[in-house]
Amino acid sequence: MAKRLILGDPLASTDSDEHLLPKKLALPIFASDALSSVAYAPQELLLILMTGGLAFLAFAPWIAAAVVVLLVVVVISYRQLIKAYPSGGGDYEVARKNLGEIPGVIVASALLVDYVLTVAVSVASGVDNIISALPGLNPWRVELAVGFVILIVVINLRGVREASRAFAIPTYVFIGSVGVMIVVGLIEIATGNAPVASSAQYAVETQDITQAAVILLVLRAFSSGCSALTGVEAVSNGVQAFRRPKVKNAQTTLAMMGGIAILLFTGLTAIALVSGVHYAENPCDLIGFDCSNPQPSLMAQVSSAVFGMNSIPFFIIQAATAVVLLLAANTAFNGFPLLGSVLARDGYAPKALNTRGDRLVYSNGMIILGLIAIGVLIVYQANLTNLIQLYIIGVFVSFTIGQIGMIRHWTRGIREIGRLPTDQRSSQSVRGELFGLRKGLFINSLGATMTASVLVIVTITKFTHGAWLVFLAIPILSFLMVGVHRYYRDVEHEIEMDDQTHFGSSGDVAIILVNKLQKPVVKAVDYALAAKHDKTFAVHIAVSKDDTEAIEAEWRRHRMPIPLKIIESPYRTYAGPIAEWVRKYREEHGSSVVTVYLPQYIVGHWWEGLLHNRRARRIAQQLMLVHGVSITLVPWLLDSSELIYGRRSRVLPGDERAGRAGQHAVPAVERRGRRVVRPAGPPAPSESAEVSRQG
Amino acid sequence: MAKRLILGDPLASTDSDEHLLPKKLALPIFASDALSSVAYAPQELLLILMTGGLAFLAFAPWIAAAVVVLLVVVVISYRQLIKAYPSGGGDYEVARKNLGEIPGVIVASALLVDYVLTVAVSVASGVDNIISALPGLNPWRVELAVGFVILIVVINLRGVREASRAFAIPTYVFIGSVGVMIVVGLIEIATGNAPVASSAQYAVETQDITQAAVILLVLRAFSSGCSALTGVEAVSNGVQAFRRPKVKNAQTTLAMMGGIAILLFTGLTAIALVSGVHYAENPCDLIGFDCSNPQPSLMAQVSSAVFGMNSIPFFIIQAATAVVLLLAANTAFNGFPLLGSVLARDGYAPKALNTRGDRLVYSNGMIILGLIAIGVLIVYQANLTNLIQLYIIGVFVSFTIGQIGMIRHWTRGIREIGRLPTDQRSSQSVRGELFGLRKGLFINSLGATMTASVLVIVTITKFTHGAWLVFLAIPILSFLMVGVHRYYRDVEHEIEMDDQTHFGSSGDVAIILVNKLQKPVVKAVDYALAAKHDKTFAVHIAVSKDDTEAIEAEWRRHRMPIPLKIIESPYRTYAGPIAEWVRKYREEHGSSVVTVYLPQYIVGHWWEGLLHNRRARRIAQQLMLVHGVSITLVPWLLDSSELIYGRRSRVLPGDERAGRAGQHAVPAVERRGRRVVRPAGPPAPSESAEVSRQG
Repeated sequence: MAKRLILGDPLASTDSDEHLLPKKLALPIFASDALSSVAYAPQELLLILMTGGLAFLAFAPWIAAAVVVLLVVVVISYRQLIKAYPSGGGDYEVARKNLGEIPGVIVASALLVDYVLTVAVSVASGVDNIISALPGLNPWRVELAVGFVILIVVINLRGVREASRAFAIPTYVFIGSVGVMIVVGLIEIATGNAPVASSAQYAVETQDITQAAVILLVLRAFSSGCSALTGVEAVSNGVQAFRRPKVKNAQTTLAMMGGIAILLFTGLTAIALVSGVHYAENPCDLIGFDCSNPQPSLMAQVSSAVFGMNSIPFFIIQAATAVVLLLAANTAFNGFPLLGSVLARDGYAPKALNTRGDRLVYSNGMIILGLIAIGVLIVYQANLTNLIQLYIIGVFVSFTIGQIGMIRHWTRGIREIGRLPTDQRSSQSVRGELFGLRKGLFINSLGATMTASVLVIVTITKFTHGAWLVFLAIPILSFLMVGVHRYYRDVEHEIEMDDQTHFGSSGDVAIILVNKLQKPVVKAVDYALAAKHDKTFAVHIAVSKDDTEAIEAEWRRHRMPIPLKIIESPYRTYAGPIAEWVRKYREEHGSSVVTVYLPQYIVGHWWEGLLHNRRARRIAQQLMLVHGVSITLVPWLLDSSELIYGRRSRVLPGDERAGRAGQHAVPAVERRGRRVVRPAGPPAPSESAEVSRQG
Repeated sequence: MAKRLILGDPLASTDSDEHLLPKKLALPIFASDALSSVAYAPQELLLILMTGGLAFLAFAPWIAAAVVVLLVVVVISYRQLIKAYPSGGGDYEVARKNLGEIPGVIVASALLVDYVLTVAVSVASGVDNIISALPGLNPWRVELAVGFVILIVVINLRGVREASRAFAIPTYVFIGSVGVMIVVGLIEIATGNAPVASSAQYAVETQDITQAAVILLVLRAFSSGCSALTGVEAVSNGVQAFRRPKVKNAQTTLAMMGGIAILLFTGLTAIALVSGVHYAENPCDLIGFDCSNPQPSLMAQVSSAVFGMNSIPFFIIQAATAVVLLLAANTAFNGFPLLGSVLARDGYAPKALNTRGDRLVYSNGMIILGLIAIGVLIVYQANLTNLIQLYIIGVFVSFTIGQIGMIRHWTRGIREIGRLPTDQRSSQSVRGELFGLRKGLFINSLGATMTASVLVIVTITKFTHGAWLVFLAIPILSFLMVGVHRYYRDVEHEIEMDDQTHFGSSGDVAIILVNKLQKPVVKAVDYALAAKHDKTFAVHIAVSKDDTEAIEAEWRRHRMPIPLKIIESPYRTYAGPIAEWVRKYREEHGSSVVTVYLPQYIVGHWWEGLLHNRRARRIAQQLMLVHGVSITLVPWLLDSSELIYGRRSRVLPGDERAGRAGQHAVPAVERRGRRVVRPAGPPAPSESAEVSRQG
């Protein structure tokens, strides 16, 4: 899966079959997003219809059928896309390669928004199902949702390697249990013992509704039902993760996923209708329902109708649904940084996101995604219906543009064939190819038409219900991406190589900044001397008269091999006087390169980072503005860095027992112990020889 | 003022009299905190008494008198402190020098808490007075408070230099207008035309109250009234800002401040009592008051009683009160970073806070203070009464410990005199000195006793009302400070200099990391060559085959003077392969010093920082863990850095017109223009000579 590619598993490069995914593991990983959406799609569909009154539920089967048809078309369209672009770029790659920069950027923006909403919607729905099983948790709906997002982020930050197997079990439990529920429910209906939902008793106030409003209502319900399609495109992003033959396996998995989704969706909707689930957007609209209680989700109502309230299967289904929804949210945490990496590679995002194999990059991306998702959940109060309004837009934008890109792809192929000389064109293979192209063109044209229509419908019906936010976010993100792209391109022009520029200099000076005479300074001095600069000397900023006299005395006492210059600092600043001194030096001695040596502390605990290096970093930043300066950082590993890096800079008794000269392989008993303070005074003779050379 | 010292005003070092503060400017700056507390102290005092019923207001004059006595004693005590410790360290210095580390740290923690609460209480009271004048703003009380904190932070970040004069006017307006109000009110009372407050008509439910509870109530009211003392110590922190004679002027200012505070406090309280201000903690307890409206502050009630509702003087007083309170909050934004700097100097806080003259340090401190204050305001919903409960604790902790420290100071002096030989002891000067010491001892003993008693009272009466939070915060902060101190001390031991450690090496190698052949890389190559290392070569990490072939071709084409080595990276990481290569090199060639050259981009816009340098920084961090490595950063100033630094690294046509070789003094018309892209190809002959040498 994409995550395995991201984790840079060392075995990835050997590409052995054991670490690619067999179909039975690939299905749960890729399908969790698509299958989990059956948890909320029927609910949202019925909810919209119910706003017109109970009579409108009659439209439900037709709308569900339309959703199924759309699902079939989309699945078939993506089978074509997988075959044509097996590298795993998905809609983004298709759009960029076939339609150009701007459509590609729009798709990327839509996908980024989509990832955020996948997390928000999935977690909100998961929490909804949990609360449906344990209604006492209702006051903490938002807190639970935020907590789950944090949990997912933490788990991802730790990097679960065996995630593929962890995915498989809950997903199969979900498919199995919901499937069994549907079968049992159908049997009960067939035997005349139809299940009855808990909300069947509640009526709804019927509103007077015009004919135009009826059509609008049906379309709105259809739009909400289309949330069942979210997640279908996931397979197209992960073709490379399949075992060979990759394309065929991916296509098969996609088909299986589509089939299972259709079965679950239709089954759930059917049983919900027969058992009389009445689900309202505002539970207080249900006449007879005590709306201080939370309204149980459709899945909860169906499972309790089929199996009985608070029965074991009921809790199993609720738990499996919740877990599958959390897994769906989890897929976004892999997709988001992966997309960021691809965008960075193409220059549309900061280059920092492109370093594959670096766990830190993805940590940043995951944290950002988590924070935005938490923000969205808080603002929308984990209200599933409101979030769904935003969700579908981004999905159908990338569907539609992807399909249009595929149309371009096929027509280009057809045109190329048309340019061939006639004799080639009539060969068997070319005609077979042309047939394949035309078939692909037909399928994707159908897909593009349908998804574009749905996009228009969804936009019109949901714009005022919150979708305008997405229509604001996507252009803003696209604008930023194009801006970043232009910026990097301009910088490339700026730093373009030419043969005219040389950076020669008329000298080379090294200065070591000295505050107190301590070991890290001595190390810096020795490194500076090793480099054999034209001139090397130490520099101390005179901030306090006592300190200055002390350092001068120390310098003489330890017979340091280079001179120490004192720079006055009347205003008690550090960087200013040094910068001034460097400028004056270069005026007098011509344009030398001045290398400033600074010790840099490496530490073992995160909080130590707050206590070291900051002043040196500020001085370095200001000095780098001076013409001719370069900064050399000489690392000093404090004892604590042993904890995570396994070595330190200080030599302690016991180090010389280590085999290699200069390698401080410390016996394990010394680690995590108290820091050993060397007594002042001459060392024992056995130590002096070993400690005198330290590379 | 301390702020001027912090801003490192260039004229500070000349110490000329014009930039120290005359008393008439020092008073408003130092007194704003102390004087502004008269805005809420009488209110809080009456509020507590009223919980027992209207009859308890009879205690008010006695309690006010006790507060005045305490104020007098505290002012006199601080006069002594100023004289003994004119360097401006205040209570912290006194505690640390006389009582030791732990009391000093406790005082510092109390002061830090105090600063946060100064901001919160002052802003909450200011907003309260604004809402008293404009009751329509009541629903946005918390938002207004948060907004004002943000405003103060922003103003401080921009660094108002002429702040002293900005302080003076509103403070004098406040003193003047409130003074006039008191005088007018007293005249009205004297002429039998006493003002009547708007809340005089509202009664309060009287509770049955035991005698013990009466005493407790009186003490609680006294504790709240002591909030009038907050801010008195400010002068002791800024003695150095006064003109000469500094100590005398500071003492005089302190006395003036105390006198004005006493007059305003007693006058306000008197008129409030006579006019029948009834102020309740929960406005709904006022019988007859419509508590959907906000309860006007005491200041507002008195001023509207004296001058008439919504009259011009009423709005002037409310405005002046609000501004003075905001100025009081502002003083915390100078004190907090200054205290942080002092603590860092002593090793109790990260050293990064100790760089005086560096605006950035104080920016961080100000932002932290602002965020914490905003958090406190949100949690306490800008409720003044609740915040006051916390406020007084911290103030009286530092009062008390400071006074005890002064006792130690005097007794030490007395003991030293006692150790002198008898003939010296009886000289005039020594006897005069002894008298002064005894006088100081008496005054501070009295002060210590009284403030300690108040501390006990305040603790007992307010503990359950929220003060326990402060008793949690102060130990936690103290614990952290002691921990930091111990840590730095341990590190000092670790890196202590000794003569046995040498860091010689058997070679010196420079490697330049090359991604693409661009100008910053060429600059790094030239700087490396200038340093004349034993060996110098370039290194490219082979992440993509195309890129590798391209760079090798480019390297040959431009005839680069050093060899280019390609390092394989099968997992597409950067730092790992280089680290491995360095280790192998050192194994084969002995323990060389390996200097890694990395270009570092300097940019003009803050957002550009997100787009550069990150990958290089990560590589550097990982490489510094390898034994024998040091990192050299070679700066490249992108064109945008001209906007803030006035120079860039790239040479453009027009630069050679500049006088100095190597100084890119660009004509002003070129700045902020579009980036000039140099066309490929040989330059015009007039340019080539100048551009060939660039230091």
